[in-house]
Amino acid sequence: MSFYYLDLIGVAVFAMSGALAAGRKQLDWVGVVFLATVTAIGGGTVRDVLLNRDTVFWIQDPTYLWGIISASFLTILYVRFFRPPFNLIMYADALGLALFTILGAQVAEAHGVSNLIVIVMAVLTGVAGGVIRDVLTGEIPHLFRSTEPLYSVAALTGAVTYVLLQKLGLLNDYATYIGISVVALFRFAAIFWNLNMPMFSIDHDKKDSD
Amino acid sequence: MSFYYLDLIGVAVFAMSGALAAGRKQLDWVGVVFLATVTAIGGGTVRDVLLNRDTVFWIQDPTYLWGIISASFLTILYVRFFRPPFNLIMYADALGLALFTILGAQVAEAHGVSNLIVIVMAVLTGVAGGVIRDVLTGEIPHLFRSTEPLYSVAALTGAVTYVLLQKLGLLNDYATYIGISVVALFRFAAIFWNLNMPMFSIDHDKKDSD
Amino acid sequence: MSFYYLDLIGVAVFAMSGALAAGRKQLDWVGVVFLATVTAIGGGTVRDVLLNRDTVFWIQDPTYLWGIISASFLTILYVRFFRPPFNLIMYADALGLALFTILGAQVAEAHGVSNLIVIVMAVLTGVAGGVIRDVLTGEIPHLFRSTEPLYSVAALTGAVTYVLLQKLGLLNDYATYIGISVVALFRFAAIFWNLNMPMFSIDHDKKDSD
Repeated sequence: MSFYYLDLIGVAVFAMSGALAAGRKQLDWVGVVFLATVTAIGGGTVRDVLLNRDTVFWIQDPTYLWGIISASFLTILYVRFFRPPFNLIMYADALGLALFTILGAQVAEAHGVSNLIVIVMAVLTGVAGGVIRDVLTGEIPHLFRSTEPLYSVAALTGAVTYVLLQKLGLLNDYATYIGISVVALFRFAAIFWNLNMPMFSIDHDKKDSD
Repeated sequence: MSFYYLDLIGVAVFAMSGALAAGRKQLDWVGVVFLATVTAIGGGTVRDVLLNRDTVFWIQDPTYLWGIISASFLTILYVRFFRPPFNLIMYADALGLALFTILGAQVAEAHGVSNLIVIVMAVLTGVAGGVIRDVLTGEIPHLFRSTEPLYSVAALTGAVTYVLLQKLGLLNDYATYIGISVVALFRFAAIFWNLNMPMFSIDHDKKDSD
Repeated sequence: MSFYYLDLIGVAVFAMSGALAAGRKQLDWVGVVFLATVTAIGGGTVRDVLLNRDTVFWIQDPTYLWGIISASFLTILYVRFFRPPFNLIMYADALGLALFTILGAQVAEAHGVSNLIVIVMAVLTGVAGGVIRDVLTGEIPHLFRSTEPLYSVAALTGAVTYVLLQKLGLLNDYATYIGISVVALFRFAAIFWNLNMPMFSIDHDKKDSD
């Protein structure tokens, strides 16, 4: 029950981040709602299509779309009068990532797939919406940029934690809360201290002179 | 019956617009047919996958693919001798958008989804093919550009009209013709008078000085 | 049986090409594995989703994902000490393309679709993974670039050969080996002699002066 409302909050937060991205590209209102929608439900949609679920979650329950439409227009309205709260949005986005990742893991579990696939679906649910948003606005996806540190690493760590804790016998409810906290704290720390993973970089010129 | 032929004409028109986009990017013939195909059937494919239909429409009925292949080679041949009729294509594209949008709404209705989802699927069927074409050729999607005014707004208005008219008791046939006309006329007008929606724009510098 | 191992080799080769592309974009390790995965299983995933198969192949058999993860880390490790073997990778990629294309055709045949759809699914299985990799890293897809000559043409020719040979009564096993060889040899020749298809090019200025 309570997870459902958390999920809706995550959708609203992601919709706002999509609407703000649309504002930076100067789209019209329909474009704003379109981009907010793709950002907010893209990850869950990719998951549902890959798992071949009978009905994609937002087709079954239109509450998600109404939430996105409301969040988009609230964002447009807010930005007309105030400076967009980019820092707040970044932390809210970390919370959305955490919720989406672990709730995505639960959907995959309910579908009866292996642990590896649960982890893959969890990360996809968390990050795919933002990837699609970036591709549509002509940006290199954020989880590939060093300016958004540890985005997918946070999702991966939380998903692995969630799966491992259950393997160790922890109740699903506790594993859920801990998994969500791991993603969020990991990402909070990464933003706050600007942490980064080691990069894999190929330098043609240097290698050529070997 | 007659809608089927209208649908095929829409596919051919969209294939030509895809083939012309390929020509501007200097692709080889296979690339031209590939891009024409994606443009022409991308929207309906996204719709069918999201609705989880048993069979995607162009897999069930290969007439669509043959139509696209023919339209692509006719475009290549035509452009070898004449100037591509960009203005004509723009108006034909408006007609294709109108047909795809309302026929997409009908497919969604037959699948038994809510009115909101019918409208979403209608707009997706109309615009997604062009979005995929633009992403593949490295352009910002056309429905996000102010140079293609009211593209998605036209589709949205027509889809809403189509759904509302049926709610008000109008026969499906009349609602279909009126819905198609609304999309096409809206878009014709937008092209002719270069109409635009209000933009949602975030100007960092100005906001910062508030 | 033996085709299964060939398929795994194809997946590993494509994963390496994805990991090297990630290295050129300076991604972190999670990004490298993500891009390697998308490159290696993107084509088969698009095919499975479009055919509406009960379970996407890599969800059913996690061996694919473990193979990709291994190949990614081997690539990272190798590049730390040696120059990446770009030429070798290009020829290995041609082999991967050949395997994916014809094994994709077999999956489509087993699904009972028409010959035209078998050919389309074969080409999609071969090329879609690379297209998604290029879109995610902000590049114009390789099969649209003249720097990667005859990529999709090779896949198309091999798929048509495979279907035709079976129509002519050849056993499936022979048609498979010949189809794979046609794709690989076609692509080897294209790389070696830098062959290209005729381009379809629209030159606005020249046309305007007609």
